[in-house]
Amino acid sequence: MIQETNVSTISVIGTGNVGWHLATAFYRAGITIRHVVSRSEEHAKELAEQVGAAPVTDLSVIKDHPELCLVCVSDDAISSVAETFRDSGVGLVHTSGSTGISVLTEVCQQAGVLYPLQTFTKGKDMEYAQVPFLIEATDTTFLKKLKTLAELLSEKVFEIDSEARRKIHIAAIFACNFSNHLVSIAADLMNENDFDYELLVPLITETMEKLQKMNPVAAQTGPAVRNDRAIIDRHLESLNNRPRERELYKLLSENILRYRNKHNE
Amino acid sequence: MIQETNVSTISVIGTGNVGWHLATAFYRAGITIRHVVSRSEEHAKELAEQVGAAPVTDLSVIKDHPELCLVCVSDDAISSVAETFRDSGVGLVHTSGSTGISVLTEVCQQAGVLYPLQTFTKGKDMEYAQVPFLIEATDTTFLKKLKTLAELLSEKVFEIDSEARRKIHIAAIFACNFSNHLVSIAADLMNENDFDYELLVPLITETMEKLQKMNPVAAQTGPAVRNDRAIIDRHLESLNNRPRERELYKLLSENILRYRNKHNE
Repeated sequence: MIQETNVSTISVIGTGNVGWHLATAFYRAGITIRHVVSRSEEHAKELAEQVGAAPVTDLSVIKDHPELCLVCVSDDAISSVAETFRDSGVGLVHTSGSTGISVLTEVCQQAGVLYPLQTFTKGKDMEYAQVPFLIEATDTTFLKKLKTLAELLSEKVFEIDSEARRKIHIAAIFACNFSNHLVSIAADLMNENDFDYELLVPLITETMEKLQKMNPVAAQTGPAVRNDRAIIDRHLESLNNRPRERELYKLLSENILRYRNKHNE
Repeated sequence: MIQETNVSTISVIGTGNVGWHLATAFYRAGITIRHVVSRSEEHAKELAEQVGAAPVTDLSVIKDHPELCLVCVSDDAISSVAETFRDSGVGLVHTSGSTGISVLTEVCQQAGVLYPLQTFTKGKDMEYAQVPFLIEATDTTFLKKLKTLAELLSEKVFEIDSEARRKIHIAAIFACNFSNHLVSIAADLMNENDFDYELLVPLITETMEKLQKMNPVAAQTGPAVRNDRAIIDRHLESLNNRPRERELYKLLSENILRYRNKHNE
């Protein structure tokens, strides 16, 4: 019984940020990585070498190995990768926030999702213990396997279905991708005026440190939450030559006030 | 000559986040805080006690003391505070990013701005050494005084005029206030679905750590920068019941792609 829920060998398909990180992390956690698959021979070799795996560029090579395969490819490529494994007996697991498990269950019996709620950058080390892993599977046994596997890396493993996972993914996009973009806008505004981006770093650090400890609505500062119309109007005027940033400034300011009022109700 | 550019005693008007922080920081740096002024007796007393100052609720009390006064009140209150000091000989210094120095020069000869590019939260300690202080003054001698004062706290003191300061302030609003708001939206989406905000904290931490070291455009991840239309459309549909968040999702995604293309040119 214990044997059944253990995974000792996996293969990793995809050598992007997620594939790179998960292959490395599971390798370090004692899992054997049998194959690393990439359409690029160079990428396959590079990662395979790091994790003691065989580099593979042709998916059909690995479909006769019945272990668990982590599919770490872009969302729109998952279904064509899955198709290669139709009726192969391989346990397929994708790592996407917003693609349902159904894309895999259509082609194979044992399927699952292992979604790390984190942003990954190739080459940057990561502490996994607190990273939430959201898992889902076709059956209890496969779910237990995924749980055992994820718990090798993290203390925070949760069973979450595809719909809930998509909602959490949207929240993550606001918290991570979109806030990163606002810093891109800030960097661009600094750059346009020949100021150094570095000047903003202590502010960014402090903003995020507050968010680790405080409710973000309580942490909100700035002209919008004070409803300081004179400043807001002056800023909108300054942004007349940047209509998209101006529109974002307007929408975000209105929304900050709306959230403040909602939470003060 | 050296004597002239030193400041040994200041008064602080306003006991909000900025007043609280600057009074405390300058007190710890060895400056005598003579008066702490607030319309609220309770607030004046509370801060005055911490920094060994006299609490004051009536501005006219301090206008005969010729030292430097830090005006840490909201932007729309600066001009009425300044009016109290007309022809008093007091050196007035405000701490606002987007209010010009002219609001002070209209009423007094010695005026300046000392704007810390940081977000302040009462009660939360702050490391000042790397916080940029943007200063401006009516004349060289007063500018030197402000420089000497600011350098007691920070290694990063820059002379910046009112127009440039406003532009930097707008950048800071995107990097700090607006990114904080996006985390508020994320928290709200988590809450709506009964998920814990805490789950997002490792993601927020990692997002920030990347921004300390990487160019934000290079650090951008997510469906928008990959131009993954299927995922983006699915997310927009999920947000149909939240039109404002939906609009922000759409605008931010379009803008992420635009920045990617612009920076790849």
